[in-house]
Amino acid sequence: MFNRLKFAGVSALAVSMIAGLPAWAQEATAPAAVPTDMVFIMNSLIMIIGGILVFWMAAGFAMLEAGLVRSKNAAMQLMKNITVFSVACIMYYVLGYSIMYPGDGWMIQGILGAIGTAQLEAVGVEVSGLDAYDYASTSSDFFFQVMFCATTASIVSGALAERIKLIPFLIFTLVLTALIYPIQASWKWGGGFLDEMGFLDFAGSTVVHSVGGWAALVGAIILGPRIGKYKDGKTVAMPGNNLALATLGTFILWMGWFGFNGASQLAFSSVGDAADVGRVMANTNAAAAGGAVIALILTMAMYKKADLTMVLNGALAGLVAITAEPLTPGLGAATLIGAVGGVIVVFAVPFLDKLKIDDVVGAVPVHLMSGIWGTIAVVFTNPDASLWVQLKSIVIVGVFTVVASLVVWFIVKAIFGLRASAEDEMLGLDKAELGMEAYPEFVKG
Amino acid sequence: MFNRLKFAGVSALAVSMIAGLPAWAQEATAPAAVPTDMVFIMNSLIMIIGGILVFWMAAGFAMLEAGLVRSKNAAMQLMKNITVFSVACIMYYVLGYSIMYPGDGWMIQGILGAIGTAQLEAVGVEVSGLDAYDYASTSSDFFFQVMFCATTASIVSGALAERIKLIPFLIFTLVLTALIYPIQASWKWGGGFLDEMGFLDFAGSTVVHSVGGWAALVGAIILGPRIGKYKDGKTVAMPGNNLALATLGTFILWMGWFGFNGASQLAFSSVGDAADVGRVMANTNAAAAGGAVIALILTMAMYKKADLTMVLNGALAGLVAITAEPLTPGLGAATLIGAVGGVIVVFAVPFLDKLKIDDVVGAVPVHLMSGIWGTIAVVFTNPDASLWVQLKSIVIVGVFTVVASLVVWFIVKAIFGLRASAEDEMLGLDKAELGMEAYPEFVKG
Amino acid sequence: MFNRLKFAGVSALAVSMIAGLPAWAQEATAPAAVPTDMVFIMNSLIMIIGGILVFWMAAGFAMLEAGLVRSKNAAMQLMKNITVFSVACIMYYVLGYSIMYPGDGWMIQGILGAIGTAQLEAVGVEVSGLDAYDYASTSSDFFFQVMFCATTASIVSGALAERIKLIPFLIFTLVLTALIYPIQASWKWGGGFLDEMGFLDFAGSTVVHSVGGWAALVGAIILGPRIGKYKDGKTVAMPGNNLALATLGTFILWMGWFGFNGASQLAFSSVGDAADVGRVMANTNAAAAGGAVIALILTMAMYKKADLTMVLNGALAGLVAITAEPLTPGLGAATLIGAVGGVIVVFAVPFLDKLKIDDVVGAVPVHLMSGIWGTIAVVFTNPDASLWVQLKSIVIVGVFTVVASLVVWFIVKAIFGLRASAEDEMLGLDKAELGMEAYPEFVKG
Repeated sequence: MFNRLKFAGVSALAVSMIAGLPAWAQEATAPAAVPTDMVFIMNSLIMIIGGILVFWMAAGFAMLEAGLVRSKNAAMQLMKNITVFSVACIMYYVLGYSIMYPGDGWMIQGILGAIGTAQLEAVGVEVSGLDAYDYASTSSDFFFQVMFCATTASIVSGALAERIKLIPFLIFTLVLTALIYPIQASWKWGGGFLDEMGFLDFAGSTVVHSVGGWAALVGAIILGPRIGKYKDGKTVAMPGNNLALATLGTFILWMGWFGFNGASQLAFSSVGDAADVGRVMANTNAAAAGGAVIALILTMAMYKKADLTMVLNGALAGLVAITAEPLTPGLGAATLIGAVGGVIVVFAVPFLDKLKIDDVVGAVPVHLMSGIWGTIAVVFTNPDASLWVQLKSIVIVGVFTVVASLVVWFIVKAIFGLRASAEDEMLGLDKAELGMEAYPEFVKG
Repeated sequence: MFNRLKFAGVSALAVSMIAGLPAWAQEATAPAAVPTDMVFIMNSLIMIIGGILVFWMAAGFAMLEAGLVRSKNAAMQLMKNITVFSVACIMYYVLGYSIMYPGDGWMIQGILGAIGTAQLEAVGVEVSGLDAYDYASTSSDFFFQVMFCATTASIVSGALAERIKLIPFLIFTLVLTALIYPIQASWKWGGGFLDEMGFLDFAGSTVVHSVGGWAALVGAIILGPRIGKYKDGKTVAMPGNNLALATLGTFILWMGWFGFNGASQLAFSSVGDAADVGRVMANTNAAAAGGAVIALILTMAMYKKADLTMVLNGALAGLVAITAEPLTPGLGAATLIGAVGGVIVVFAVPFLDKLKIDDVVGAVPVHLMSGIWGTIAVVFTNPDASLWVQLKSIVIVGVFTVVASLVVWFIVKAIFGLRASAEDEMLGLDKAELGMEAYPEFVKG
Repeated sequence: MFNRLKFAGVSALAVSMIAGLPAWAQEATAPAAVPTDMVFIMNSLIMIIGGILVFWMAAGFAMLEAGLVRSKNAAMQLMKNITVFSVACIMYYVLGYSIMYPGDGWMIQGILGAIGTAQLEAVGVEVSGLDAYDYASTSSDFFFQVMFCATTASIVSGALAERIKLIPFLIFTLVLTALIYPIQASWKWGGGFLDEMGFLDFAGSTVVHSVGGWAALVGAIILGPRIGKYKDGKTVAMPGNNLALATLGTFILWMGWFGFNGASQLAFSSVGDAADVGRVMANTNAAAAGGAVIALILTMAMYKKADLTMVLNGALAGLVAITAEPLTPGLGAATLIGAVGGVIVVFAVPFLDKLKIDDVVGAVPVHLMSGIWGTIAVVFTNPDASLWVQLKSIVIVGVFTVVASLVVWFIVKAIFGLRASAEDEMLGLDKAELGMEAYPEFVKG
């Protein structure tokens, strides 16, 4: 399928192709093997690139959520997103990273070990200080992992928008990123019991997205719906104030996901890696496209109107769905896995409303439900996956996160209270808590 | 020119520079040649990075176009952009990629071969499965190429904004991305007759931009202008609703173009590649700057007002102009090539209005006219280029695209109709077709 | 701390780990040393990636500033940002690059040498044309350096917003980027006397940020405050029109800073580089988080309201503060260095208002004051730094930039005038100078 002829357009190489072979192939003396130092360098590089892209997802969440709330809460949503990211970065350094990678032992040792905090290599470390197991720099790994922890926290803010106060929200996410996320992540990515059981979750449909989704769901139930959302048995539409921002946020998240999934290969130092990461990129893109298109088709069929918000969430659900296994599916399977994510969103959003669970941006359908679907879907394309193990792991992570979240939400509620006063909620959190407005000059209708 | 002394700020290396040589130069045993596995890895890497950046251009088109339409059509423009990208990704996988790279034969074989669809390498492919011609992973190539196909489709949506219905637009682009783009792209990049003729188009001034531009031009003529655009022989200004979005879109496109042009080197595995890709990056940037500055100067000279929309389109026209040959020009020549693109835009936008062709965002001047200019300009700096071949290729691609587009537009029109009803157009497509608004809370003046 | 077990999730490698060692470690024949061609390739790559990210900061400044001005000046702020970037790119090519790297001699020779302009390598350069000192391609170095020059110019536009006319502003920045920035940058990064003195400034807290900040401060004093800003001894709040844009701009700048600081390692070709760049990335991120969180805490403590604009500027001040030395601090120290930047912003913004210096976006606290702090803070973590040398260098660069800026501002004022007429200022520069509005449809309150 691949065709080298596009290559001929490159003039420097055209010359050697006339001679029959690309320049590098003519150098008969060129060895095949990748030097071990290059292995370390390339693996570090892909995690650094990945970390930058996953950082960018924080901006995506901020834009998506600021666009989907009413304008009187837009500045608060921006504030929550940039501060939750910052708090997550600090807490993951103070505690999270140490807990997540407890070394030989697990959890107990990890927590004990966490009295010390994340340490990176010394400046200008020499190769002699590293052994063959050190396949990449700790610093690039930390940079990549801290962004995953922050992503988990970002998921929560959207569901609870327009009614939770800033400080209690930040304190919950402080515990989420210091303890809840790293403890359960250690079970899989720190080599804990889920990993030993054979649980497969390539980039975190369960470890990241469902955890954020569970915490958001518990929070949304405890908080209750926004004032006026459910009236006389009917759901009142509270449309997002700025769909351009919401669309921008979706595109940013889609872009960032190439780092989220692609760099979760954790290596780019062999021919196999170079082909595999390409597969992951192409599949991630295909799944998002599948989710978007199916949401378009379904909303047109069901409501006679194409629903932009559903299409955006459809794309995101496709991305979440492919995250547990973006490597093994073919392009067609990836598109379908994403499309099922889109279907889930279209039906789950009104279903949550029926249950009077007010999830402002659709975080639960996108991250939790589609995350569960994606974790199950691993079994369709990866022969190493066991349905039983996947299901068991989903339940274990879910029960842990729900219980831990419940405890933390109740403690935070008891100490600080969670919900803004009815008066503040009606006024909008921007004026009430920030004393400013996102768009102070535009007259609201 | 290059000065190594900034290097001295890097402490780890400062030590070895005191000793007279950088660390790596001291290792007398270090070989010069790049291992063949590294060639494969590095070439794949540049295409993956390029693919991510070209993906980002889809967001750029969405923001640019949503900012340049009136607010009553902004949500629809966002919808068209995210769905056209998604449809393009699916169609290029189903048909386009196979048609574009037909292998030894051309077109007929390609179409026959396309009954099967794009297949990437197996997971964890080993080097032994590849021969010397496989200079990069198929998966990274697909990921890069699918974004070019989607870009072609994105160009069309802006010109037809504010009056074409969603579904007919998507069906046209479905055919564009499944057949029209890949067929003509195979003539150059699939090793077809244009390539054999010696046609030079580094990253697609003609293959991508003019094709999108021709399809847009034909569509704009068939659709006719927006209601009220041309009245009593005068052009009525319909200013874009959000110039911040439009500017953001331009910056995004500018950034994405570094992947579009830079990664079209298709290699980053030799000293020559590393220098050449740097040249392409610097030239691409210079051309955009040239286009922006000349549009500023011209609009101030001609209208006594600096025109932001023209400056944005000037930068974009500069980018399109340098795309056919971003490697061979010096920095000064690149700036000038881009500046001519800016001149074209400043004069072509009012010229199209005189012809009563209503191109809402200026897609035809930017992508088609500046694309033609850029394709011709190759002859000024690349000694391998023939003016006659360049012109012939422009005409061949143009005639093919115009005829194919005409046929498809008329079929789509006959089956679905193209244009929204006058009532819907006046109301705005957002309310009419989507049942939502981009900014539901802001009062419009 | 680093744990290889996440690796086990990668199926291709899982196999070899069962066999006890990663695949690449099993290849006993794989050499350790990086081939010299790869050194050149990898160093070029990191500068190209860095250049793209620093380019992106131009979009960040545009969004930040357009969001923080009043809507009647938003289009002008967008215009200033895209044109100042374009002018900077052209001037740095025409003069700046040659002046900044004068070769063996310094300044005088540099200026003489600058009659010729920046030249990159020939197309398809071969390795034989390079000696051991050429550690990366000139073209990638130029692409990276031109973005730093443009950043310096971008800093100026925000402080002078809402009252300086477009053309005089552009002419000042033309001189800034052609002469002022490159001359002082040559003192450090061109191997001049500051570098010989032992001045340390990794990515430019002083060389870039304080220079932009000094030029902005001088300009703001000469221009005077906006009409109505200081009334009866009180500061009148003129809130930014679009905090979503401002937040987006901050996230963009934060992202771009990973290239600004990370790629200022100027190398990615050894194990030490791969670990060091990871350190720089993690520290850069930590400093921004520290600055944001402290600004949140302080504004809540001082004003009982969390101030989003201060949080945004706090994050940016953290980024500026870590820029002089993002490599040697540990993560905790980096967080603290950034936090001090955030403290500076919270106190300096009202302090400038007391002095009736009207810095619209807070550029002076963020880039100048926090830049000075960051340059001093180098001595806390880098044993090679001398407090005396750091202070002397800050003063030398400051005095030079202030004097040069004063001269240029006065010449530009004498020839063109600087300030818009009171009438134009009240109307807004968008309508007055551009004849357009950023948001023409939204009714303003």
